[in-house]
Amino acid sequence: MSKVLGILGGGQLGLMMIMESRKLGVKFLVHDEDPEAPALGVADGKFVGDSWRELIDKSDVVTFEFEHVNLNAVNLAESFGKLRPGSLTIWLKQDKIREKSFLRDHGFPVPRFMIVNSPEEVDKAVNQLGRVVFKEPQGAYDGKGQYYVMGEGDLGKVPRRFPLLAEEFVDIYKEVSVVLVRSSDGDVLTYPVTENYHYNGILLYSIAPAEVDEEVAGRVKEIAVRLADTLNHVGVLTVEFFVTRSGEVLINEFAPRVHNSGHWTLIGAAVSQFENHVRAVLDLPLGSTELQRPSGIVNMLGVPYNEEVIRRVLAVPGTSVWWYGKAKVRPRRKMGHVNIVANNVDELRKRTNEVLSIVYGNDIGRYVSPWNLT
Amino acid sequence: MSKVLGILGGGQLGLMMIMESRKLGVKFLVHDEDPEAPALGVADGKFVGDSWRELIDKSDVVTFEFEHVNLNAVNLAESFGKLRPGSLTIWLKQDKIREKSFLRDHGFPVPRFMIVNSPEEVDKAVNQLGRVVFKEPQGAYDGKGQYYVMGEGDLGKVPRRFPLLAEEFVDIYKEVSVVLVRSSDGDVLTYPVTENYHYNGILLYSIAPAEVDEEVAGRVKEIAVRLADTLNHVGVLTVEFFVTRSGEVLINEFAPRVHNSGHWTLIGAAVSQFENHVRAVLDLPLGSTELQRPSGIVNMLGVPYNEEVIRRVLAVPGTSVWWYGKAKVRPRRKMGHVNIVANNVDELRKRTNEVLSIVYGNDIGRYVSPWNLT
Repeated sequence: MSKVLGILGGGQLGLMMIMESRKLGVKFLVHDEDPEAPALGVADGKFVGDSWRELIDKSDVVTFEFEHVNLNAVNLAESFGKLRPGSLTIWLKQDKIREKSFLRDHGFPVPRFMIVNSPEEVDKAVNQLGRVVFKEPQGAYDGKGQYYVMGEGDLGKVPRRFPLLAEEFVDIYKEVSVVLVRSSDGDVLTYPVTENYHYNGILLYSIAPAEVDEEVAGRVKEIAVRLADTLNHVGVLTVEFFVTRSGEVLINEFAPRVHNSGHWTLIGAAVSQFENHVRAVLDLPLGSTELQRPSGIVNMLGVPYNEEVIRRVLAVPGTSVWWYGKAKVRPRRKMGHVNIVANNVDELRKRTNEVLSIVYGNDIGRYVSPWNLT
Repeated sequence: MSKVLGILGGGQLGLMMIMESRKLGVKFLVHDEDPEAPALGVADGKFVGDSWRELIDKSDVVTFEFEHVNLNAVNLAESFGKLRPGSLTIWLKQDKIREKSFLRDHGFPVPRFMIVNSPEEVDKAVNQLGRVVFKEPQGAYDGKGQYYVMGEGDLGKVPRRFPLLAEEFVDIYKEVSVVLVRSSDGDVLTYPVTENYHYNGILLYSIAPAEVDEEVAGRVKEIAVRLADTLNHVGVLTVEFFVTRSGEVLINEFAPRVHNSGHWTLIGAAVSQFENHVRAVLDLPLGSTELQRPSGIVNMLGVPYNEEVIRRVLAVPGTSVWWYGKAKVRPRRKMGHVNIVANNVDELRKRTNEVLSIVYGNDIGRYVSPWNLT
């Protein structure tokens, strides 16, 4: 009989997991608090509110599409031996201080940081680290809960809620990520390194393969694999890096799941990150992560469904559109993305720019304003 | 608002159309007589029995996944101006004599044929054409309703139901097909030519790009495009060719729809035949049909769902599995297929052979026996 996979969380990541992997003969159950969550619409079984107990009961394996899910559900699934990956990464991801400390304590390269517990320590952090990013331990995500202190004048922006994570500001040459998949036997396959571009703290577009030195690409892959091994991870893991001009690489953060910067694999690899995650958690053999053609994505952030825009995007060679079908539009919200392929990275960048200007025109700030202005 | 596309027929072709194209923001309604048809399970609206009137009413555009669908539904959809492609090809495909005559009368290369109306004319056909394939005008499909007369001894096999199409037997070097997509404006994109291998009259596996002379590849593409123009076709059209040792190309038949020999495009092209069909019938720009990597498929015919087999198939590098989830297994029935990619055609053939031996072992006849023995 075919396997039943329960997914905690019904956002676009769960939606794409199902759309990419149902072909394997897997049945999908989805839980989300929000009855309008997009993945519920394509699930074989829908569970809302407190019904996650029933989902766990009916699933052979339980996974999550997002690390901020109901912890009671995570714990119950784990107590039945059904949770994949395990709860360690969820626990680490609940708190930025915990995550950064774990990485540092296990020998992974991270920006210098301090834990700040008082207004005096805010000043001390600035004295010691120079330019500082202060982050709220919980809820710093997609640009929220982060405060940049680039000079004295910015100090007033830092909230007086403690503790805060104070991290040295890294003068970034490039931001890249490694998406990998790891089996329960410890086999690991990495996708080609992806180059990421953010706008107001949120991913705007990605390009693969990243244009970095081969040596740098090899190093970030090696670190990502070592992290997956350290976490004894099963499934897809994404590690985001800062690359400095001098070629230093530092882990910014990791995500114990499929990731926006891996959406290009939907077209650019024979087996997408979504299918590979499902394969890994169900103990099926991992699939090819090789690049088929240079590939990228452009996020459609905060934009309503507009057939004319989609028509113009599809007219750019090598594109397709993934619209998530969310019930409501909000500024910065990930409403969909555009997949783009090309014969080389230059052509890919050109097409990416075309798509960006079709989706956002000259007024990207209208759709992707800073989180604190939305 | 997003478009609503009605699909007549709920088999695997409709299923893959939906799974590949929902991301465009399209809503899908499906009609099938059989309430267990696989595409119904993923439709936004399900219509069984006589409810096709309601489907047509609620759809912006109506298409079909298969040419043998309810003709009343086809006619009603067309009378409302909603049917794409038009009914001409359905009418031609209802009758092999009609199809072949249309092709010949419009100057397309086809094997020599005669229309046979009596036992005497059976003999006459054999005298004039030599080795002959007799085909029942209706219902000759996937090897059914075809009778090969290679010598006097085979004459008894030919049924005494008339008319029959008597077609010269072509000594085939290769069978290839061209899958193309045509917009209502007359824009046409062709996928790379595909090489097809049949077993007991049913497609067993395909390889793209076909290993034929470039000149031959160009010629079959040109003929296929000319046929699409002649039919004023909108959507995907597939044309199957015989290629002889001398390089002659003859149309075997065409299918006014997505086709089994184009399933490799699910991974091997940036935009699959399924997505391109949906784009074309909804007047969206056509997507890239370029080959990303050498790609093929192996059909899983008449085999039950077997997790161990799927596991072994997925362990072959470059593979994925598309299982259709049909309610019942029958010999010869298309239960699923395996997608395969590789870095070159030799590696692709090697992987294809591995997959064939995993799926069928040494006893393919058990699953793909001749239709008249099932």
